[in-house]
Amino acid sequence: MDKILLAHGDGGLLTHQLIEDIFIQEFGSDILGEMGDAADIECGKRIAFATDSFVVNPIFFPGGDIGKLACAGTINDLSVYGSRPCFLSVSFILEEGMPIEDLRKVVRSLGETARSAGVKIAAGDTKVVEKGKGDKIYINTTGVGEMLKNFSQANKIKAGDAIIVSGNIGDHGAAIISRRAGIDFKSTIKSDCTPLNHIIVPLWETFDGIKLMRDPTRGGVATTLKEIALKASKDFLIHEELLPFDPQVKSAAEVLGLDPLYLANEGKFIAVVDRKIAEEVVDFIRRFPEGKNAAVIGEVLEGRGDVKLKTLLGGTKSLDMLAGEQLPRIC
Amino acid sequence: MDKILLAHGDGGLLTHQLIEDIFIQEFGSDILGEMGDAADIECGKRIAFATDSFVVNPIFFPGGDIGKLACAGTINDLSVYGSRPCFLSVSFILEEGMPIEDLRKVVRSLGETARSAGVKIAAGDTKVVEKGKGDKIYINTTGVGEMLKNFSQANKIKAGDAIIVSGNIGDHGAAIISRRAGIDFKSTIKSDCTPLNHIIVPLWETFDGIKLMRDPTRGGVATTLKEIALKASKDFLIHEELLPFDPQVKSAAEVLGLDPLYLANEGKFIAVVDRKIAEEVVDFIRRFPEGKNAAVIGEVLEGRGDVKLKTLLGGTKSLDMLAGEQLPRIC
Repeated sequence: MDKILLAHGDGGLLTHQLIEDIFIQEFGSDILGEMGDAADIECGKRIAFATDSFVVNPIFFPGGDIGKLACAGTINDLSVYGSRPCFLSVSFILEEGMPIEDLRKVVRSLGETARSAGVKIAAGDTKVVEKGKGDKIYINTTGVGEMLKNFSQANKIKAGDAIIVSGNIGDHGAAIISRRAGIDFKSTIKSDCTPLNHIIVPLWETFDGIKLMRDPTRGGVATTLKEIALKASKDFLIHEELLPFDPQVKSAAEVLGLDPLYLANEGKFIAVVDRKIAEEVVDFIRRFPEGKNAAVIGEVLEGRGDVKLKTLLGGTKSLDMLAGEQLPRIC
Repeated sequence: MDKILLAHGDGGLLTHQLIEDIFIQEFGSDILGEMGDAADIECGKRIAFATDSFVVNPIFFPGGDIGKLACAGTINDLSVYGSRPCFLSVSFILEEGMPIEDLRKVVRSLGETARSAGVKIAAGDTKVVEKGKGDKIYINTTGVGEMLKNFSQANKIKAGDAIIVSGNIGDHGAAIISRRAGIDFKSTIKSDCTPLNHIIVPLWETFDGIKLMRDPTRGGVATTLKEIALKASKDFLIHEELLPFDPQVKSAAEVLGLDPLYLANEGKFIAVVDRKIAEEVVDFIRRFPEGKNAAVIGEVLEGRGDVKLKTLLGGTKSLDMLAGEQLPRIC
C-alpha cells in the first residue's frame, strides 16, 4: 500500500497500522506509544496553551516542509508568549491518495524537529478525507508550555523602548512564493522555518527588561508590529535603513510586487525591550546562527497604535495590517 | 460579506474582523478575548492532553453539527481518560466560499456546548484554503484536563470484571448515514453527540472500582472493546441480548447492511468495573437522561485479547477491529 486510503481514517485496522508503522516509529515518544485517546503529562501549574493549523502549499519547500513548519510554529508561539515549550499534540487531515512516502517524510521531519527542540509529542489524531476535499496534508499542532517568570506583557511597553528583530525579514514568504511559482530566481532563497525556543527561553530568563516578544508569521513584520502597537497603545517608529534583509529576498519581492515587510517569517521574532539592554539583547541573539543578523529596528513613542516607517529617502509612511490576500496558504 | 474569502485566512485585517465578529462574540471567553498567539491557563500539575480533528460530512445532522461534535469529542476523550476537562483550543480550516452564516452557527453551537460543559475555550486559530481544497469546515479541538485520583488503567482489568455501556449503541453513525444518503427512515434517529463530563467525572470520584473507561467513537463499540481487550490482555464475553439499541437504529443498519456494533457513538462510554459495583454504577448512570439505557453488556475472562459475542441464537462469534472503510468522515 503506497497511498492513503479512506479506510486509513476509519479508526479500524488500517488506522492502527498507520499509527504503528509511521507515527510511533517516527515520533518515538513513550507517551504517544501508549496510543490512548489522551495523554497524561506533567507540567507547571501555570501553563501556556497555543494552537495552529498548517495548510502551507507546497508541502515541501526550500528550507523545510509542512512537518517542520507545524512543529516550529507552535513551539515559537509558546516561546514568545513567555513559556518553555514542553508538549505538542499533532493532528493530521490527510487527503485520500496522498503518497505514504510523502507522509513519512513529513512525519519524520516533524519528529526530528521536536526532538531537536526538546519538546515531546504527547497526543495525536488522524483523519482522512476524500480526494478533492483536502490538499495532501493539513496538520494541527497544539502545544503546552510551562510559564516563565518573565513573559509577554504589552502593558509594560513604554515610550523609549527599543524594537528588535532577530534576523532577516521575509525569508519564509519569499521561499514559498518562489517554489510555488516555479520561479528560479537564480537564488538560494530558503525558508527560515525553525524552532527558536533555545534562544527565546534563555532571553526571558536572562533579561528582566524584555517587555514582549512575538513571531511575525502570517501578515509579516508589518502586521505584527501594528498588532503590538495597538495592544500597547503606543506608536512605533521603524527605520527602513536598519531592517535586515537577504538581498535576494528583497529583489524577489520587488520582481513580484510584494512588500517583504508583509511576507511571513517562520524562524524570527520581534522583541520590545528596555532601551538600556537593547545592545546586550542583540549581542545575545547574534551568538546563535539563526540570530546572526539580529538588529534594533526602531523605537517606541507615545501614541495610540500607529506604526511609522522612516524610509530610506527620508519620508515617513504608515504601516497597517495586511489587507486583502497577499499570499494564501503561506503557513 | 457573506462568504469566506481566502483573505480571511491571511492574518491581516479580514482575519481580525472574523475573530472579533464571530469567534470572540460566540465563544465569549475572557482568555480567548486577549487574542494572543497563546493563552496562559491554570491547571493541576498533572494534566491530561487530547487532540482530535473533525471532518464530519454533513456538517449539520440530526442531533448536532460539527461544532457540537468537535467540542463534545475532546471533552469526552479527556473525561474517559480520567481527568476533569478544563480548557479547549479550537482551530478552523475553512474552505473559501463557505457561507459565513453557517460558520456562525457552527461556532455558536461549539461555544454553547463548551459553556454547558463548564469548559473554557482558551486558544484558537483559523486558516482558509481555496475552494475545492477542503469541504466547508474542518475543526481541530485540543483539550487540557486536570488528572483525577482515579483514571483509566488497563492493567487493573481482571477476570470477573463487568463491562458496561452507558446507553444505546450506534446512534451517531446511523444519524450521519441517514442524513448523508438523504434516506428518510420515517424515523427520528438522532446523533447522540454530547459532552458527558458531568456523568463521567463524578463516576471517577464516586467509585474506586472503575478500572477503565473509553468512548466508542470511530470504529464503534466493537473496535473499542477489541482495543481495550488487547491492552488489558484479557478476553471479553459480550451478550447480544444485553446490548441496548434504539430499534430504529437497528433496522436502519440492517437495511444498509451495516453492523451497528461498528457504528460510531459520540455521546456514550464503555466502562470496565469491578463486578461488585456494576449494578451501582449502572444505576448512577441511569439517573442522567443521556444514560437512561445504560447496561451491563458482558464480562472479562482470562485470555489474550479476544472479544467474543454470544449471539441471540446461542452461537459465539469473534468481534475484531473495523477493517476496510465502513463510513468515511463519520466524525
